[in-house]
Amino acid sequence: MTENRDNESVILTQRPDGVPSPDNFAFEVRSLGPRAAGMIRCQTLFLSLDPYIRSVIAGNHLGHGIDTGDVVPGEVVARIIESDDQKWPVGMLVRCHSGWQQFCDQPAEGLSQIPQALSRPSLTLSILGMPGLTAWAGMVSIANVHEGDVVVIPAAVGGVGAMAAQLARRAGATTIAITSGADKRRIALETLGYDHCIDRVDQDLAEALAAVAPQGVSVYFDLVGDPTLTTVAQQLAIGGRVVLCGLIKDYNGNHKTMGPHPGLWITKRATVSGLVVYDYEPQRAAFEQEFIPLAEAGDLVANEEIHEGLASAPEAFCRLMRGDNTGKVVVHVDS
Amino acid sequence: MTENRDNESVILTQRPDGVPSPDNFAFEVRSLGPRAAGMIRCQTLFLSLDPYIRSVIAGNHLGHGIDTGDVVPGEVVARIIESDDQKWPVGMLVRCHSGWQQFCDQPAEGLSQIPQALSRPSLTLSILGMPGLTAWAGMVSIANVHEGDVVVIPAAVGGVGAMAAQLARRAGATTIAITSGADKRRIALETLGYDHCIDRVDQDLAEALAAVAPQGVSVYFDLVGDPTLTTVAQQLAIGGRVVLCGLIKDYNGNHKTMGPHPGLWITKRATVSGLVVYDYEPQRAAFEQEFIPLAEAGDLVANEEIHEGLASAPEAFCRLMRGDNTGKVVVHVDS
Repeated sequence: MTENRDNESVILTQRPDGVPSPDNFAFEVRSLGPRAAGMIRCQTLFLSLDPYIRSVIAGNHLGHGIDTGDVVPGEVVARIIESDDQKWPVGMLVRCHSGWQQFCDQPAEGLSQIPQALSRPSLTLSILGMPGLTAWAGMVSIANVHEGDVVVIPAAVGGVGAMAAQLARRAGATTIAITSGADKRRIALETLGYDHCIDRVDQDLAEALAAVAPQGVSVYFDLVGDPTLTTVAQQLAIGGRVVLCGLIKDYNGNHKTMGPHPGLWITKRATVSGLVVYDYEPQRAAFEQEFIPLAEAGDLVANEEIHEGLASAPEAFCRLMRGDNTGKVVVHVDS
Repeated sequence: MTENRDNESVILTQRPDGVPSPDNFAFEVRSLGPRAAGMIRCQTLFLSLDPYIRSVIAGNHLGHGIDTGDVVPGEVVARIIESDDQKWPVGMLVRCHSGWQQFCDQPAEGLSQIPQALSRPSLTLSILGMPGLTAWAGMVSIANVHEGDVVVIPAAVGGVGAMAAQLARRAGATTIAITSGADKRRIALETLGYDHCIDRVDQDLAEALAAVAPQGVSVYFDLVGDPTLTTVAQQLAIGGRVVLCGLIKDYNGNHKTMGPHPGLWITKRATVSGLVVYDYEPQRAAFEQEFIPLAEAGDLVANEEIHEGLASAPEAFCRLMRGDNTGKVVVHVDS
């Protein structure tokens, strides 16, 4: 048992209506009670901000959610600071889902050890975190991306998109980014190595896609929903594969993506697969076996956008949900 | 070269608006000109009526169609009556796509020999025809139906549905028919051996489905589009497979199926595949190897609804498009 401890936290004050704003959140110092027997106390070092959090705070993430007054959820890299478990010693770096707070007490089952030899622990949240696992599940396990594929990725420089693009490139596919603005265009082409980049604001997506993918799109990794989904679906090659993974437009509010007319899937002989990353936790060993050497060798670019301090989390998250982020959004909470 | 020949034909007089009516068609005696060198003259014995014809006469079947004044298309069983090709002798029974007419001249490439030993040649149009191949492609090749699956089939006693149900049953799946009326219910349960039958008019589909498939639907063979598609999709089991094959509601007019929200496919981790039967012609040998012995042994029920005489085709087709048929619709043209 240990003493109480002040615990800087960010809580949800009201469910956002549309794109979230920082006043949907409040920074509070809460009290972390005494550590219960068997629990392991951790200090957050890095916090991952991801779009799924939007549906959790809306209360409808795969049927689950949080309430106002709760700490906002999220995956973190933490350091063990108190433990009675020899398998989880003080000083060890771990990954857990403790959310937007400085400290947490976790049972051993809630912790995953971070692979040694990572150049920096924040990579756990991008390359080896949920974004990396999601990209691997979609590109490798579901779409079976291979040489000759023409792969389109919206939200192209974000956490999942950046990983998916690099996997597709490594498999020999042609990669097409959909993004917006000069900064993200540069990152897509120069940092992440996309073959083409379409600006969804300045260009007509259908026309631009027809120009760079005249034979059609063979793999579409959907992270955003309509209208992009339908426009890309109309340019699928016969037998194209579509991985449905995110609906960022819908997360932000009352927009209700309808997706293309089923007749389009028939005409295209498409295979459309729904992806929920949690299903792939049992395959994490296979995923890590593939990704850790790549991460260690510097062969995967994490393209992180790192914000300083827990208090920056609300605005950093809102920026992500506005689509203004230029990389995988991570908050550096402590060292 | 041979003489002209009177050729009873059914032509399209106007594109239907909504459900077709017999006055969209006209029975005419046209002249079949002299047979050109290399062509094989055939006499139609049986004509297959199938829902895809609705989109052909609308002019939008996979980008193709016919015009008013054209003979209505369709697959037939015919007998060769004139030929100079020893491989295609007079008297041989063949399958071809010559449409709603008494005679036709076909190149050898347009003909397929009908397997010997079928108990009656019309089975070529059901068990071994497009309906059988469609059912095989969807159930075996795409959905890989297996023991323990819970399979839902709308248009359950029609050509494709009847074959799909029998394939699913043979694989050890539980089969659920969606149909309407006492006649079709009896055929579904007694003739075709479905385990359950839901009446889409008299019953609430969602409630009835929840009652007979409390663990969810693992395979849905969609032949009809919305609203059935969305209702069944909502009751998919996690990891359910959906074969999109037909949109009968849409064929009949301005109704535009939207299909379920893509978020539902994500939540259900569904795999949704578009099926166009023409893609499976290269696999016909594998299909026939499986189906001919079953057909010969009487292990597949064709459940034909046979109409007499070419002049009956328009009303028989309209009946099909109203959903009033009680089996695979075939017109007996000649003996």
